[in-house]
Amino acid sequence: MNNNPIGIFDSGLGGLTVVKAIRRLMPNESITYFGDTARVPYGNKSSELIQSYSLQIADFLINYDSKIIIVACNTATALALKVLQDKLTMPVVGVVKPGVEAALKITKNNKIGVIGTLSTIGSDVYKNELELANDAVKVTSRACPLFVPLAEEGWIDNPATKLIAEEYLKELRQANVDTLILGCTHYPLLTDVIQAVMTDKTKLVDSAHAMAVNASDLLVEHNLSAGRNNNGHLKLFVSDFPARFETVAKRFLGEEIANVEKIQIDTI
Amino acid sequence: MNNNPIGIFDSGLGGLTVVKAIRRLMPNESITYFGDTARVPYGNKSSELIQSYSLQIADFLINYDSKIIIVACNTATALALKVLQDKLTMPVVGVVKPGVEAALKITKNNKIGVIGTLSTIGSDVYKNELELANDAVKVTSRACPLFVPLAEEGWIDNPATKLIAEEYLKELRQANVDTLILGCTHYPLLTDVIQAVMTDKTKLVDSAHAMAVNASDLLVEHNLSAGRNNNGHLKLFVSDFPARFETVAKRFLGEEIANVEKIQIDTI
Repeated sequence: MNNNPIGIFDSGLGGLTVVKAIRRLMPNESITYFGDTARVPYGNKSSELIQSYSLQIADFLINYDSKIIIVACNTATALALKVLQDKLTMPVVGVVKPGVEAALKITKNNKIGVIGTLSTIGSDVYKNELELANDAVKVTSRACPLFVPLAEEGWIDNPATKLIAEEYLKELRQANVDTLILGCTHYPLLTDVIQAVMTDKTKLVDSAHAMAVNASDLLVEHNLSAGRNNNGHLKLFVSDFPARFETVAKRFLGEEIANVEKIQIDTI
Repeated sequence: MNNNPIGIFDSGLGGLTVVKAIRRLMPNESITYFGDTARVPYGNKSSELIQSYSLQIADFLINYDSKIIIVACNTATALALKVLQDKLTMPVVGVVKPGVEAALKITKNNKIGVIGTLSTIGSDVYKNELELANDAVKVTSRACPLFVPLAEEGWIDNPATKLIAEEYLKELRQANVDTLILGCTHYPLLTDVIQAVMTDKTKLVDSAHAMAVNASDLLVEHNLSAGRNNNGHLKLFVSDFPARFETVAKRFLGEEIANVEKIQIDTI
């Protein structure tokens, strides 16, 4: 038993969808979240830079007694998870593997689609993990750079969003994928339009929910779960208060924002 | 006469539209450009943070013997120009004033529109400058957060871009503006669609071009122009090589990218 917090970080606020999923599944776990809002987005930056940011933030979370580290950012998982696992002595998990495992369980025709940021898709991390697990699987990937700003704009059911989704998802439909991994923590907000474009023939895999299930297994396995009577506490750190912080954060977290603190990134 | 370079910076690559305009107008001027690609975009960050970034980059450009500093980023101009002008001893100019002056010369009905990022529009910098110069002017402003990712995607004449432009520009059309300031260095790439939506009744003001004209005047005024036979040299610094760097940079600069160097931002 261990009542220390789970440490979670993301490039910005999108990782709050993972926090939401964990709080729903394990309300007794405390969470310390770091959103790197001063340097968001990671999706269009180099792997070298993302690795250095990730190590810096992991150190910060460890100083706050995190018992495990969750990389709640697909880009950082794609580009920096291995480096973190090599350098840190505690369990470190990322959002890719749980999404991959969930997709492999769901698919019937072995045709799996993946959508994400430019960096995530360019890294081929999902494709490689899927094909490594099952070489009969055929993966079709597509970067969708406009989905993040659309989700942040809150243009959930706008006709333009529908047109953009149709353009981005065209090849995935042609490839007849029966399972589509939402490889970016922002994308669950666009579930309705993505589902509508893909039709009911395709099951969507929300990597935030898959991550929460995986984290629960990991805590049990390492005997690190919080006590049943522990009152799960949520502490948020951000490296900047961006425009519309409250609105956007609440949209992802699904509850009111409290207990948030700004940290100057150069000094951590 | 002074053959030292003009120092120019932007949050990313959008400011290369200003470099392009200056090189066209003053081919004998050397330019040192800093694109803060590791921390782009500035448009959704706080003013405190933008001020600290801007001071850091201005110091860097001064170390490279810049004779004047041009803030080629509307957000940084809106939020940090005054701080830079207070702290530095050399001429520092931003993209806002030239755009404002050009718009005031063009308008006939005194109804001027401004579009830009969330931070630029939220700061009211264009509105305040326009109304200060002429209190008969009526300003209508609108933040267009999706225009930057659309420009970077290169979705210049996509039907979705048209729909998004129609949504963003609705109030500006209703307000009957005869002049529209493109208050973001990315927006000139979307000139065609913006012009089509606004119709020929509205003149667009490209702040990059206005900035180049203003810089030329400033150099003459301070006796800082380069010699007529000086071969204008362009040196680019970036804080990261993002995905699609060459393609996007070339799109903004209008010429092949050469002589570019990556600088680690923590160490400058």
